[in-house]
Amino acid sequence: MSAAFKRSVQFGARFVGRRAVSSQARNATDARILKVAIGCTVAGGAAAILAGNAFRSLTVDKLHAETKRAAPDFHLYWASGSPPCWRVMIALEEKGLSGYPNTLCSMQDKQHKSEEILAINPRGQMPSLRVGSVGLNESMGAIDYFEMVYKGQGTSLYPSDNPEQLALVLQRKNEVMNVHKKCVEETLFYLFKDDKTDEEVAKRTEVFKTELMFYENYLSQQKTGAKYIAGSSFSMADVVFFPYIAFFVRLGLSLDDRFPNLKEYYERLSQRPSIQKTWPPHWKTAAAPSQLLKVI
Amino acid sequence: MSAAFKRSVQFGARFVGRRAVSSQARNATDARILKVAIGCTVAGGAAAILAGNAFRSLTVDKLHAETKRAAPDFHLYWASGSPPCWRVMIALEEKGLSGYPNTLCSMQDKQHKSEEILAINPRGQMPSLRVGSVGLNESMGAIDYFEMVYKGQGTSLYPSDNPEQLALVLQRKNEVMNVHKKCVEETLFYLFKDDKTDEEVAKRTEVFKTELMFYENYLSQQKTGAKYIAGSSFSMADVVFFPYIAFFVRLGLSLDDRFPNLKEYYERLSQRPSIQKTWPPHWKTAAAPSQLLKVI
Repeated sequence: MSAAFKRSVQFGARFVGRRAVSSQARNATDARILKVAIGCTVAGGAAAILAGNAFRSLTVDKLHAETKRAAPDFHLYWASGSPPCWRVMIALEEKGLSGYPNTLCSMQDKQHKSEEILAINPRGQMPSLRVGSVGLNESMGAIDYFEMVYKGQGTSLYPSDNPEQLALVLQRKNEVMNVHKKCVEETLFYLFKDDKTDEEVAKRTEVFKTELMFYENYLSQQKTGAKYIAGSSFSMADVVFFPYIAFFVRLGLSLDDRFPNLKEYYERLSQRPSIQKTWPPHWKTAAAPSQLLKVI
Repeated sequence: MSAAFKRSVQFGARFVGRRAVSSQARNATDARILKVAIGCTVAGGAAAILAGNAFRSLTVDKLHAETKRAAPDFHLYWASGSPPCWRVMIALEEKGLSGYPNTLCSMQDKQHKSEEILAINPRGQMPSLRVGSVGLNESMGAIDYFEMVYKGQGTSLYPSDNPEQLALVLQRKNEVMNVHKKCVEETLFYLFKDDKTDEEVAKRTEVFKTELMFYENYLSQQKTGAKYIAGSSFSMADVVFFPYIAFFVRLGLSLDDRFPNLKEYYERLSQRPSIQKTWPPHWKTAAAPSQLLKVI
């Protein structure tokens, strides 16, 4: 065990000792977790709107002490409910890597700004992945890391035998960053604001709907049976896309008649083992503190 | 030759017939190209500030009619001077794929919104890559596509034998999206504005410098001889990072005593064959129309 790994295990162990807090308090952190995890700032007061000024400690837990199998030396620090963190956890499960060393961090306690995490991640964001002595905090890179290192194990998240299908998966995987930009940064974060106007809300919710409609159309235009975001198999595109849809549903988005294919997709993938297993812990115990996306 | 490929060659051939325009006119398109290529909007008038209201047609050229070797059926549509387009072209050269089918598109003539391109790229952005019948317009995915399909050919842009080094390359490759967000979207696009304030300019130029300092430090902290953004070998991280630095230098950024390692990096990589060969054509013939980044 390397010195760096020992330090990280000790760090994780300190987290284990903390007490769990109430489900209400966990629940209140949805907005804050997303913001910190993705490294964005929001106008003053926005966090408080969604969280109802009820920020308290998240339960902090080190879920797994040992790796399941011989594996590169890595450790994942994550926050509950953050789409960037969730995508890494789904990829790990799909690659058959249950039981990896990990630490659930409290944003409220600023554990993402702790010395231990800043040492591997100078930007202090979630997720933080330590690989040996290297910090890999970019979640879009972390999911590729596990696919590349564990190629041939578990789900093939990139098709290896069909260049055209590979192109489609790479297109959709990266295209989902538009959901982040348009739906999260441009719309959801605006809805947090105190001084929002009806006109601007209408404009931005239209941007949100237009973006989601791309994926609704991708699903509807595919041939029968091709019910994933990039065709007939679960792929890296779903690893990145699904957590956003689930986050939006939690915040009140209704996938009604406007998005029938996305609704079916959400309901079906919610039952997928890798997604069930990594479902944000605090979502299981309490409703969201806000239903801001009901306006969409 | 597939029907889709034939159509694309015919489309490219139509472009070949157009006449080249003056170097001044090419030169004026720097800001517009970047904006359209990356799908961003800028407040009214911003484009005109940098371009001096001199938007005219870019020369449009189909540089290569035939692929050099048996290869998947693909065609690249690109704009001169766009960092996202440039990264794809550098990756192609590094993979030994000179002579691929490609079309230089005029943003002024709105060729990125043509039916041919919208058919493979509903967002109408540059670059657009057609792979068989699939559109891959996300440049971060396109570079991965060529690395995956031509693995073992040309430069290995991801290390395959060292998980820790792979993690570092994936971290830096994706981290460079911060340069896009902080230096381009938050700073450069603000500098385009008519109604900018001294206070806000000072604040945003500080954001720009802070972001660049990450990479200056990465270069300075590496062991002797490790003079690339992610260690001692040219990698996918450099494919993504270099075009931004070159774009900033073109717009007046001085890599002086504040960024000595970045300066050496810029000068050295400017001579790299893949970069020399793909240097934006209109940069070779005319100075930039603006030196907005002199304020940094």
